[in-house]
Order: sequence, then structure tokens, then C-alpha cells
Amino acid sequence: MVSIKEANQEAVAIMQKSEPVLVDMGIAGEVLPGMTEKTILHAGPPVEWEDMCGPMRGAVIGALIYEGLADNEEEAVELAGSGEIDFAPCHHYQAVGPMAGVTSASMPVYVVENKEHGNQAFCTVNEGLGKVLRYGAYAEEVIEKLKWIEKTLAPAFKKALDLIESGINIKNMTSQALHMGDECHNRNKAGTALFIREITPYLLKAGVEPQVVSEIVEFMGENEHFYLNISMAACKATMDAAHGIEGSTIITAMARNGVEFGIRISGLGDQWFTGPAQVIDGLFFPGYSTEDANPDIGDSTISETAAIGGFAMAAAPAIVGFVGGTPEDAVKFTKSMYEISVAENETFTIPSMNFRGTATGIDVRKVVETGILPAINTGIAHKDPGVGQVGAGLVDPPKECFEDAIRAFAKEYKG
Amino acid sequence: MVSIKEANQEAVAIMQKSEPVLVDMGIAGEVLPGMTEKTILHAGPPVEWEDMCGPMRGAVIGALIYEGLADNEEEAVELAGSGEIDFAPCHHYQAVGPMAGVTSASMPVYVVENKEHGNQAFCTVNEGLGKVLRYGAYAEEVIEKLKWIEKTLAPAFKKALDLIESGINIKNMTSQALHMGDECHNRNKAGTALFIREITPYLLKAGVEPQVVSEIVEFMGENEHFYLNISMAACKATMDAAHGIEGSTIITAMARNGVEFGIRISGLGDQWFTGPAQVIDGLFFPGYSTEDANPDIGDSTISETAAIGGFAMAAAPAIVGFVGGTPEDAVKFTKSMYEISVAENETFTIPSMNFRGTATGIDVRKVVETGILPAINTGIAHKDPGVGQVGAGLVDPPKECFEDAIRAFAKEYKG
Repeated sequence: MVSIKEANQEAVAIMQKSEPVLVDMGIAGEVLPGMTEKTILHAGPPVEWEDMCGPMRGAVIGALIYEGLADNEEEAVELAGSGEIDFAPCHHYQAVGPMAGVTSASMPVYVVENKEHGNQAFCTVNEGLGKVLRYGAYAEEVIEKLKWIEKTLAPAFKKALDLIESGINIKNMTSQALHMGDECHNRNKAGTALFIREITPYLLKAGVEPQVVSEIVEFMGENEHFYLNISMAACKATMDAAHGIEGSTIITAMARNGVEFGIRISGLGDQWFTGPAQVIDGLFFPGYSTEDANPDIGDSTISETAAIGGFAMAAAPAIVGFVGGTPEDAVKFTKSMYEISVAENETFTIPSMNFRGTATGIDVRKVVETGILPAINTGIAHKDPGVGQVGAGLVDPPKECFEDAIRAFAKEYKG
Repeated sequence: MVSIKEANQEAVAIMQKSEPVLVDMGIAGEVLPGMTEKTILHAGPPVEWEDMCGPMRGAVIGALIYEGLADNEEEAVELAGSGEIDFAPCHHYQAVGPMAGVTSASMPVYVVENKEHGNQAFCTVNEGLGKVLRYGAYAEEVIEKLKWIEKTLAPAFKKALDLIESGINIKNMTSQALHMGDECHNRNKAGTALFIREITPYLLKAGVEPQVVSEIVEFMGENEHFYLNISMAACKATMDAAHGIEGSTIITAMARNGVEFGIRISGLGDQWFTGPAQVIDGLFFPGYSTEDANPDIGDSTISETAAIGGFAMAAAPAIVGFVGGTPEDAVKFTKSMYEISVAENETFTIPSMNFRGTATGIDVRKVVETGILPAINTGIAHKDPGVGQVGAGLVDPPKECFEDAIRAFAKEYKG
């Protein structure tokens, strides 16, 4: 049997060589293997309807209305609790979703293919700020915007991507964005601008109506997080490839459902190791405070798992205006991540640190040994459905999930 | 009479309050006051045809052909030397131009208005990389591209700008770009992407043909220096407002014509103080070396004069891959500029330096007292016309121009 070290080197080599490319737009119900009309996917580790937090319940209600399975909140709540709906983590369907992460059959998704390994990953389209499903809003305007994404934006993107023979290389775009002040989790301003620069000529060449292209470019331009969902799908395509290496202690997923924070380990199959989702320490938008905050939620921590986000904060000093702290803190967090990782990224580099590669491949053993938890920056959802984002900040994962994983690993590989 | 200190404070207060906004596209011969069909503007302090360097001569030849004043190189050279053409610095016509800076009557120019002070400044449109007029190329393809800019790009921009009631705030865009890894002289990747994001919907709303919009967006997207010329016009609009303050020793222009480097001082009217243009220390493109390099050329040092470019290099650590050196050098250069400046910028800040404002308002007295020369990063032109850019790097201005300015100031203000 190979040593843990060798297994981890193999997992990290896969991460380094991964080549996630945006190749297509699909419809969740058609492209996510196993997805049905009655499947509702959500962020984080498994959670049943009864246990879901406010924003996730709101997003489920919205998705059921959007799908036409319910006419209003009351019907949606009844259906959700009836046992007819299969709730499952996005992660179980090769997908990821920010915040509530709710994904239903009719929703368009980015199709990101890991060209090196052949696997695909999926993520919905970012809805922008304000009242949006991922924060649990389900008012008419929310459903209308989702329909616009389904009927207008996604078909236009599909036409454009059809013209781009080799697809859009997201690994390359992310590496550029890291040199432009993004860390590609909570700051996606450069990534979004680069994506607009890339796709717009193809939207026009594909014959999309000029007025529609104008609407789409404005929609992207007004939402500096637009790139997040594309980046998340790319991270998922990378980490899924590195999953399932026998004997590896590399963390291949970190995700939160608003109640629990969970991780998966490359060498431990489909198991989740969980602990309570924590409260986020950050900057609140005017009028909100910690009391309004839902605990940590969303699959966007796939970013940190894949060596960006909190692991690249030193590349994005301007982010502290959004998540709090100082640029020095950002550098400190980034540097401490080398202590819990097994490699330095060959593609994602930090100019101000003399182009050092970001810490890559979190070894759960190192997390437990050092007591250093993965640095995560994240948006803060209001605890009630429909209110939306109330801030952004830094959050610690719960220690126990890493300890449980170590124990499970010892048991699995004993002898 | 006010003290020098007070005069300098006044000049710098004008810089801080300036609000350069891109309001329109114009035709040089129509909007530059005093410009005629026989005027050819060039970068830097005054220089006559006989004394011009290779790339500037090439650009003049190209401009005469472009204007239809000559049919070929031979005719152009004859006309240039005939005395019929009025050569003058761009700076004398409220304009600036990168590299050779050659601007002739038919060329479209950005019209940037300083909303706070009412003055306007102008700059041509960046032609992209490869064979371009600003590096002294004048082959048919060069002229064709200039014609495309004149007939296609500029009219489209004009239509778009007509729809944007308040214009595009360039000060704001530059301050964002500085938080995205640009220093807005030799790295304009973020500025260009932000400009694309901003103008594209208006190009479409203005009814520009989709195929033309696609061409224009691709043209901008393929040239990460596209934003430079817009930024330069904004810097010129800022510095012209701060010029002419009696008793002020603030430098309001630094510019090179490829033979001489010249400066102007706020309190010394239209005089230029010059010294020999220096050789640039930098990174050369494959196949080129210092032997191929023309001495320092172009008006783009208006960037440093206006507190960006070399004065903001710490905001753009990734630039060292282009101009050479290390990210630590970039920080060191940036920090040393505070020693020769009188203020810190209220709008242009450097995230990694805890959002410290860039050094603003170069005091020629401090340059001479400390011996610290303004930090300038720049492109390197081949010494022969038509070859183009051969590298980029850092360059020192000649000390004597600063010393001459001090002597002239003492004479002017004696008693």
C-alpha cells in the first residue's frame, strides 16, 4: 500500500494538472446525473427539510414555486414537508451552489469540464445582489429574475459557448484575476470583468439580439460576484478529480448548509464529517448586526479547498473593505495556510509574495496537528428567508469535523 | 505674496479636487485649440524635424501619409523638412500622446473634461500592439488601422458617450483599477476591462451594428494598454488645472521626445526644462537588447506627474513581470516618492499599504534636495522607425532639468 504522503502527492498532482474549462450551459434536470423533477439540491452536507435554516427554507420555497410545483408559500411548505421531494447536497450531484445553494431541475447551470481528467462539474448562474434565491428570497421579482436567467441569459451564453471551440479556460482566468486583486471567493471584480471581456464578442457573433447582449452585459457589470459561480464550478471540477485517492488525507470538499459545516476526505469516499456551522466575524451592512446573521452557509468554500479564496487573500488586499480586518491580516491568513497544506500552487500565484503559489491541498492531519483551521472568508446571510446578504467576514470551521475525519481515517486504514 | 508652501498646497488641492470625465470623442483638427491641417503634434518638449529620433520621424511620415499630405515615405520626408509643417508638442495643445505621440488633424481624440475646473484635455486612441504609429511604423496596415479607428471605433464611441449623460468618470475608474493590480501606466489590464464593462452596453444601446461592437470589444480586449490613452488625457486634465499657480514649485508635466526629457513647473509658465533622454533599464522582448532601444520617449509620464504609474507601482506587483525587478522594488520605489512629494492622494490608494494615498504633487525643490528622481516605468521603443515596442522598464529622468528649473525659479521669484 502507498504511504499517506504518496497518496496525498497523487491527489495534489491531480489538482495541479486539472484544467477546468467552461464548455457549455445545461439545464440541471438534463445534465446532472440522477437529477429528477422532484430533486431539490442544497448547499453543504445533507440536511432534511425540518432541520434547514431560514434562508435555505426560503430558497426551497422559491425553487418549488419557480418549478411550478407549488403556487405559493403555503403549498410549497406543505410539499417540502410531504416526503415527495428528494433533498440532497449539490455535492452529491457533481454540483456546488453559493449560500443556500438551492438548485432545481429547470435551472440552467454552467458546465465546466476538467479537460485533464474528463469529469464535469456544475453550478447555477449568480443572480446578483439584493433579493435573490440563494439568500432565501422567493418574492415574484426573484422568480422573474430566475426565469430571465433561464429563458434569456443562459440560452445566449449557450450560443456564445458553441462558438468558442476550446471553451473558456477558467483556471487561466482565475490565475489572471489573482493578479488583479481578486481572491475569487468574496472578491470577483476582476474575474467578472475578464469574463465580460471574453464572452461579449461571442454573444454578438452568435447573433444574440443587441438589446439582449446589452442587458446581459449590464447584468454582469452590476454584479461583481458574477464570476463566483463559474469559479466554484471550476473548483468543484478540480476537487472531484482529486477525490477518491486511496490513503489520501487531502480535504476535497468543505461546505456548509447553514446548520452544519462538513468536510470530505479524498481517501474516505462519500462520508461527510460535520460540526456546527459557526457565526461569522465580519463587517455588517448598515442596520444589521451579528444578531441578524445566519450561521455559515454555502458551498463556496470549495474555493478554499481548491487553493483560492481565503488561501489567496494576500492577492486581494482591497477585500478587507468588504470582509473586515487589515491587509496585514490578509497576508497573515494566507501565509498560515502553508502550514496545513502539502504543496504550493503552480498556477495560482500571489504577486506581492514574490509570485509564491497559494497553499494547495489541505491535509486534515496538519489541521489537527497544528490547530490551524482553514482560513475562510464568506458572505453573511440574514437568518430570516428573503432578507438577503447582511455582511461579509471571516469564519472558523468547527474543529470537531477535522478530528472526526482523522478518527475515521485511522479506523478505515488501520493495519 | 504667498509662500511657496502655500502655492504648492493650492496646486495640490486642485489636483485632489480634479474630476476628469470622458465626455466625448472629437477630431483633433476640430477640438484642439489652434490645430491646423499642417500641424503635427509630438510627444515631449519641443523638437524640430531634423533632430527627431527614429520612431518619431517614422510616426511623422505615417501621419503625413494618413492625412493624405504625402503619398509615400519620400514625399513625406520632403514635406516634413520643407518648413510647411508646424511641429509642436502635444502639451502645447492641451493634449498628450504615448511614445512618439504624433497627433494630426484628422485623428480622433478622447475629450476629457475636468468637471471641477472646466478645462479639457485630449489624447488619441491606443492602436494596440505590434506595428503601430506611436512606435514609428507607417506601413499600409498601420494607416488602415488608424482609418478604422477614425471611421469605425471613434464614431461608435461618440454615439455611446452621447447616451451617457454624466460621461465616464475616469478618476473613479483609475482608483478602482489601482485596487485591481494596475498602476495605470504600464499595466492597464484592469482599467481596460472596466472600460469595456462600462462602454459596451452603451455601444449597443446607441445602435452601433452588433458586428462593429464585437470588433471593437475584441480590439480593446486584445490590447491591455487600451485604457492608457484615456488615463493620460485624465492626468493631463488634472495637471493643466494645477498649472500656472504663482510661486508653486510643483511639477505639472514630465514628457520625453526621445531625445530630451523635459519638465514644466506650475509657477514657471510655459517654459520647459530639459536634459538628455535616458536609456531604459528593463526587460527586453526575445531577440532585442539595450542596443536596439531608443532613449526614453512619450508623454505617458503625465501618469507619474499625476500620482499614478511609478508612483503607484506597489499597487501593481504583477507589473514586475513586464518592467523587471521584484515586487519589493515596486514597493520601495513607491515609498520613496513620498520624499519628493507634498501630499498623499485622497482618491488613489494602495490597498497593500493599508490604503495609503499615492505620493502626490512632485516638488522640484525636494527632487533636487534629496537627489531622489521621480520613479518612472515605461515602454521601450526600437530606435528604428516601424519596429515597435522591444521591451519595458524603469528609467531615470536626467537630473539637470530639475536643477535648471530650480535656478529659473530662483531668478523668476528673486526678491
